[in-house]
Amino acid sequence: MQGPGLLGNHKATPMDIAAHLPLSQQDALVLRYGAGSVPPAGPWNDHIALLLSHRSVRGYRPDALPEGTLESLIAAAQSAATSSNLQSWSVVAVHDPAARAAMARAAGNQKHIEQCPLFLVWCADVSRNARLGEQEGVELPALPYLETFLVAAIDAALAAQNAVVAAESLGLSTVYIGALRNEPSLVSELLSLPPGVVGVFGLCVGYAAPGVTNEVKPRLAQPSVLFHDRYGSAEEPALRAAYDAHMADFSARHEMGATSWSQRVIARMGRLSAMGGRDKLSDILRGLGFPLR
Amino acid sequence: MQGPGLLGNHKATPMDIAAHLPLSQQDALVLRYGAGSVPPAGPWNDHIALLLSHRSVRGYRPDALPEGTLESLIAAAQSAATSSNLQSWSVVAVHDPAARAAMARAAGNQKHIEQCPLFLVWCADVSRNARLGEQEGVELPALPYLETFLVAAIDAALAAQNAVVAAESLGLSTVYIGALRNEPSLVSELLSLPPGVVGVFGLCVGYAAPGVTNEVKPRLAQPSVLFHDRYGSAEEPALRAAYDAHMADFSARHEMGATSWSQRVIARMGRLSAMGGRDKLSDILRGLGFPLR
Repeated sequence: MQGPGLLGNHKATPMDIAAHLPLSQQDALVLRYGAGSVPPAGPWNDHIALLLSHRSVRGYRPDALPEGTLESLIAAAQSAATSSNLQSWSVVAVHDPAARAAMARAAGNQKHIEQCPLFLVWCADVSRNARLGEQEGVELPALPYLETFLVAAIDAALAAQNAVVAAESLGLSTVYIGALRNEPSLVSELLSLPPGVVGVFGLCVGYAAPGVTNEVKPRLAQPSVLFHDRYGSAEEPALRAAYDAHMADFSARHEMGATSWSQRVIARMGRLSAMGGRDKLSDILRGLGFPLR
Repeated sequence: MQGPGLLGNHKATPMDIAAHLPLSQQDALVLRYGAGSVPPAGPWNDHIALLLSHRSVRGYRPDALPEGTLESLIAAAQSAATSSNLQSWSVVAVHDPAARAAMARAAGNQKHIEQCPLFLVWCADVSRNARLGEQEGVELPALPYLETFLVAAIDAALAAQNAVVAAESLGLSTVYIGALRNEPSLVSELLSLPPGVVGVFGLCVGYAAPGVTNEVKPRLAQPSVLFHDRYGSAEEPALRAAYDAHMADFSARHEMGATSWSQRVIARMGRLSAMGGRDKLSDILRGLGFPLR
């Protein structure tokens, strides 16, 4: 199904490999896991190669997208599964530069929110069903539950991921913006979201700017996240140590400073200030019409 | 990019069309939205055609999957974006027939959970990071927040959706099992999940059994879910009425009884008993190590 890959050439660096798309299966797996942690090679095709090649991009050219691109991405998104066909999500394409600028600031000055040709706010939305109940004169007692919010958030995520795959299949790049949850009330105000709708994350879509870091980010080895019948693995500490070393190399190549994965997790989870206000999400959601009962 | 499609032949039914893969863009959009609600045709390729062709399948042949399939699906899953690279999800492949049977019962007698060759339980998992903190002797105060659970659930969804796309690209079928949340504690017990891990949904993977309903499920028209700058559309009631009629036809073809979408939403949300116990999810999650602060 494949040759030895560019990594058979020992002078090739991960950056050299990433520049040669489509990747061979072996190269794609080495980039994703590191040469020491490649899982057994299973079935492979162009679709799986596309999925493996994903990387988040945080710098965009201003070029507009081809006509109809948004509609193709949304058709892909709506084709994802949705719990009981409730379709309890919505998406808002944000064009207004002032709204983009306010969201970029709220998200910790992520300039790509202003820069990208398409910025989407993916919303958990139970309001459509609430309106349906009102118009039909029927009470919907399931609405105020945590379960109902969770279904909406998960359905929004399934939909958005299909849009991401579709975008990348068209040569576009993307990055999710979780920091949109820093100030959900501001986002609601900017987009006139009614009660029962909240932006769960944003998504930048566009053509990657030249020179933007473009290497696939390595992940934990499969035995760290995949279990059989019973959760857990005695290997976990050794796998984390190997991944820490691998990620320190990756960081040194890209972000200056050889920071391990464990150090990054601690930086992110080790102080409430790193949550950017999201420690208040529970109260904020209640204020936006999700009682989370 | 496409001809008029099979729907140019007015004798073709949606079932005839669905039997002819790959679909043309026009046929794919008609199946997904109905002939009266097709969005403008945008960019199109085989990847987008694959996404549009998704349908959930609830009956499987017992045939085993090719060797390495699970590893390919998990490589696709791990290639999805993950918030701050925290990777706070895990997946358990359930092989044990007794555990499968117990989960099938808990999920309201969904026999395909026992039948499919691969059954995956996708977990929101903050325990890996909790163990990291313990082993490094560092407190992680962000762990007990709703935000942290939500990140884990969304990351699990992004990962699972990539696995679904990969599976369908290999000619396999899938169905998500949200009813795994009917009894999260039972699932935790069956799979020895530690505190800070919960199965957020299951996923059946396998070859569709012959005769299993195989038509793409129509969705709400794009203007029902996609907005520009401001949430909402004055067309909403008319769009719902049109979708109700379309879904009543679909139901009559497949599930006996011409039930509209609105009737189905009301059946699902209009009484707590239809939640299958998930009205208790908030308390159950707290008991499983997610304080949801």
